[in-house]
Amino acid sequence: MQKSKPTQAGLAIELQLPNGGTFKPEDLALINMIRTERSIIGASRALGLSYRKCWLSVDALNRTFESPVIATFPGRRGGGAEITPFGERLVALYCSIARHASNSAKKSLDELTSALDWSFEPRARVAEPERDLA
Amino acid sequence: MQKSKPTQAGLAIELQLPNGGTFKPEDLALINMIRTERSIIGASRALGLSYRKCWLSVDALNRTFESPVIATFPGRRGGGAEITPFGERLVALYCSIARHASNSAKKSLDELTSALDWSFEPRARVAEPERDLA
Repeated sequence: MQKSKPTQAGLAIELQLPNGGTFKPEDLALINMIRTERSIIGASRALGLSYRKCWLSVDALNRTFESPVIATFPGRRGGGAEITPFGERLVALYCSIARHASNSAKKSLDELTSALDWSFEPRARVAEPERDLA
Repeated sequence: MQKSKPTQAGLAIELQLPNGGTFKPEDLALINMIRTERSIIGASRALGLSYRKCWLSVDALNRTFESPVIATFPGRRGGGAEITPFGERLVALYCSIARHASNSAKKSLDELTSALDWSFEPRARVAEPERDLA
């Protein structure tokens, strides 16, 4: 399957909380996959991420708030994880923030999209000037 | 001076454009510092970033749109950089998106702030379970 560029402009929103905690699009994706897979290990496989990385994300989320976001049930066989009611509230608030932001950004994003250079390659190797500093 | 945690919740917003380009809070900070310092090298020093990193960011921004965002005037002594009219329009649109998003997120962020664990340490070293996978 050919990977194509997205056709629509969008926003990636990170919540920055005053205790130093954050909530990023990757956290939302992880929570949604844990809900589907009913375990952190299953979510890590489905997302192609290491178990360690996912576990650390869940641990950070659970320490950010007074209530846990993900409840884990360790065990070699019957282990698993599920989203707590507070976790579902967090997801709902994040999605509401993202939806409102996207809606109100639409006109500005349309203007920027009409100004794009469509030959742009994000990781182009370009010669960097060594001597003439701008 | 003691570094303190921010007292208010906020959003960090990245624009994701359909040609693969992006515009991040760091890009805004770099543009604003180039406007102040009138050069990329001056902005890199003021921000504590490498010249290479700043130059690559400017190059990517300038290739993202049909019009350049930063105009550079190379030269060993008289070199410098300034924000183009299109660059100023990009900044204005980004700030407008960010302002609207923050305003509409305020209630949700207040609710999440009231649920924070204030003893949270983002980079806490915690024992990770090795055997019992959740």
